[in-house]
Amino acid sequence: MTWLDLPADSPFGLANLPYGVFAPGGGSPRVGVRVGDQVLDLASALGEPVFAEPALNAFLAQGHQSWARVRGRITDLLTDPKHRGAVEPALYPLAEVELLLPFEPADYVDFYAGEHHAANIGRMFRPGSEPLTPNWKHLPIGYHGRAGTLVVSGTPIVRPRGQRKAPTAAAPTFGPSQRLDIEAEIGFVVGTGSPLGTPVPLADFAEHVFGVCVVNDWSARDIQAWEYVPLGPFLGKSFATSVSPWVVPLAALEQARIAPPPRDEELLPYLADTGTGTDSDSGTKADPWGLDLALEIRLNGETVSRPPFSAMYWTPAQMLAHLTVNGASTRTGDFYASGTVSGPERNQRGSLIELSWGGADPLTLRDGATRTFLEDGDEVTIAATAPGPNGTRIGLGEVTGRILPAVTAAGVGEGPR
Amino acid sequence: MTWLDLPADSPFGLANLPYGVFAPGGGSPRVGVRVGDQVLDLASALGEPVFAEPALNAFLAQGHQSWARVRGRITDLLTDPKHRGAVEPALYPLAEVELLLPFEPADYVDFYAGEHHAANIGRMFRPGSEPLTPNWKHLPIGYHGRAGTLVVSGTPIVRPRGQRKAPTAAAPTFGPSQRLDIEAEIGFVVGTGSPLGTPVPLADFAEHVFGVCVVNDWSARDIQAWEYVPLGPFLGKSFATSVSPWVVPLAALEQARIAPPPRDEELLPYLADTGTGTDSDSGTKADPWGLDLALEIRLNGETVSRPPFSAMYWTPAQMLAHLTVNGASTRTGDFYASGTVSGPERNQRGSLIELSWGGADPLTLRDGATRTFLEDGDEVTIAATAPGPNGTRIGLGEVTGRILPAVTAAGVGEGPR
Repeated sequence: MTWLDLPADSPFGLANLPYGVFAPGGGSPRVGVRVGDQVLDLASALGEPVFAEPALNAFLAQGHQSWARVRGRITDLLTDPKHRGAVEPALYPLAEVELLLPFEPADYVDFYAGEHHAANIGRMFRPGSEPLTPNWKHLPIGYHGRAGTLVVSGTPIVRPRGQRKAPTAAAPTFGPSQRLDIEAEIGFVVGTGSPLGTPVPLADFAEHVFGVCVVNDWSARDIQAWEYVPLGPFLGKSFATSVSPWVVPLAALEQARIAPPPRDEELLPYLADTGTGTDSDSGTKADPWGLDLALEIRLNGETVSRPPFSAMYWTPAQMLAHLTVNGASTRTGDFYASGTVSGPERNQRGSLIELSWGGADPLTLRDGATRTFLEDGDEVTIAATAPGPNGTRIGLGEVTGRILPAVTAAGVGEGPR
Repeated sequence: MTWLDLPADSPFGLANLPYGVFAPGGGSPRVGVRVGDQVLDLASALGEPVFAEPALNAFLAQGHQSWARVRGRITDLLTDPKHRGAVEPALYPLAEVELLLPFEPADYVDFYAGEHHAANIGRMFRPGSEPLTPNWKHLPIGYHGRAGTLVVSGTPIVRPRGQRKAPTAAAPTFGPSQRLDIEAEIGFVVGTGSPLGTPVPLADFAEHVFGVCVVNDWSARDIQAWEYVPLGPFLGKSFATSVSPWVVPLAALEQARIAPPPRDEELLPYLADTGTGTDSDSGTKADPWGLDLALEIRLNGETVSRPPFSAMYWTPAQMLAHLTVNGASTRTGDFYASGTVSGPERNQRGSLIELSWGGADPLTLRDGATRTFLEDGDEVTIAATAPGPNGTRIGLGEVTGRILPAVTAAGVGEGPR
């Protein structure tokens, strides 16, 4: 029980306590924790200098024992009425602060861990073939994205320009993407890194990963289709990836943990998560790390899909184990996203290319308008929640962005159309 | 003329002056410039605090006018004998210092800009098809790599482990890579970034890119072959990318500039580099940015290939223009590599998979041993030079690494073989 005036079913109650970086009106950016519709200034409330920084990284680098200690201190401050007088001056109304990117990104990896999404894309792009590539159920496919273009929720998204070529055209043309899309994903923030040459086993996931965000991995499907063979997506993705402002710690997601879907192929030992261990150091269950998160996609305020993260084939623990099994090091601030979350039903698909089946079957919106891909002015919001204690829900917050028209930069002509 | 005791044909004379980060015995890392076989401590010699840092980034961020000013100051210090007494105490013998990664990497992109390499790979992997994919001559294909595993020359390379599957096998196996390879490349260090939404036109290349390194993009071909469809290389590359310790500034490469090979396809305007402009701000020629660099690959001390960078189809100015044309921002410390440099002749190929034609035609070494891919204990060195003034050569230094056996980490089993 908190002394705060907070409804018992608040998605941002004491069971949640997500971390972000905020700037109070006129103040410098610092680390805060969201409680209800307020932000607790941690530098002020706890007096620890890592929270006076403009990114979570210094706190993340302290490691999971520090994460647990600080969570305990915050809970105590917000529970014991004797702290009320000291804490209240450190609370800011959410509406009066600016929220910034919560961490300074190191490397960014995007996975492709959703079976329904990968199969939908395969059916559209390779009709007549097996929907999934032969490697898909043996390893979580992933690739590196552009860390420098991670942006916080609310950042406007300028429609990217680039090369695209219709199958029947003789040559590519240059111009604004005509198939601008979203991808609803969940992202994982690495708190403590791992040295070169040392893989992170499944059981150590919660010692390394601090928490989760909601992600919109904006995608220009026409640019991507022309560029991606043979080395994968590049400019079709690198113009922007939006991240929600609140990092929900794994400690808040214990009730969300579930087994992932049954495995169709026997997994190699470093990915096999069917044992039942307890990680001795962190004290958390070593597996499974399937997560029963509920996503919701809103287009101009209208809910168009509800993707279930429970359908994801690969867990975030498997993603990290795979990412490091070749000896690759990780660093504080590394960020990896799940890939598009799609469920088996049409209204659970996590991208417009799936929702409109490649543009062949437009979405009809409430006002009678239709959409295949995004139009200028469209605003997309992806929100997520997780099961909390006693039947409540924990909020992961939301990631939002509005599409601005493409701009023509000096020195970059349009070329033949 | 310098007052230093330096041969007139030294590859590290006053026409070069490459930057690196070094630690003198017992001292903290700082920025230096190589002159002959000595390192000039810039923090000491110039008294500017940006050079007391353990990475070039702060200096790079100052921009091209500062780069030109500092180059002028260093040239003056090493030319005018009146500075000799003050400068000599700031010179360290190269053999007595440790060389570190010269810059703190932001994002890392690897291109695929060599036509002979891409065609060789295409002929091996897609026999009977066109060697180049349809997009290849319309855009410089690239993908993001792992910035966190860039390592400085000399860092041992532990043989990576991972999944691989022979075409005839029913399932993948796990173990040390059996097709560990090199890729001889040239890398480009971004000095001043560019904001989100603002492409960098060809003419602005030299205002943004500070200089070049030699790169060995180690590649595990068996891991890569199994993982890379459909999203590109990931663990087959991310275990390590080695970088030479000296960043040769573009200002030292004026004599190396040449026109790239004739273009077989008309290029879209943002990539068209056939004009003859002068960039008004930097004062350098706006194009072309083909570079006549000579690479040399040594395996255990024996020269096995001499790849010519002059054969590269795409220039580094085109790579940066393409990387940013969708509005992607760049940052100080961004690093992009050319892709494997291969010439048309067998002894100009830049990777072992090409030199041994996928393992079918092993290399025979001087001592009678043969190689298809790398064996434990092998040491690979890639060196490069450029034309300097008056028929001399400028050294780009070298990047070297020795292969250590794969290690078995706790918690990561071998699985079925």
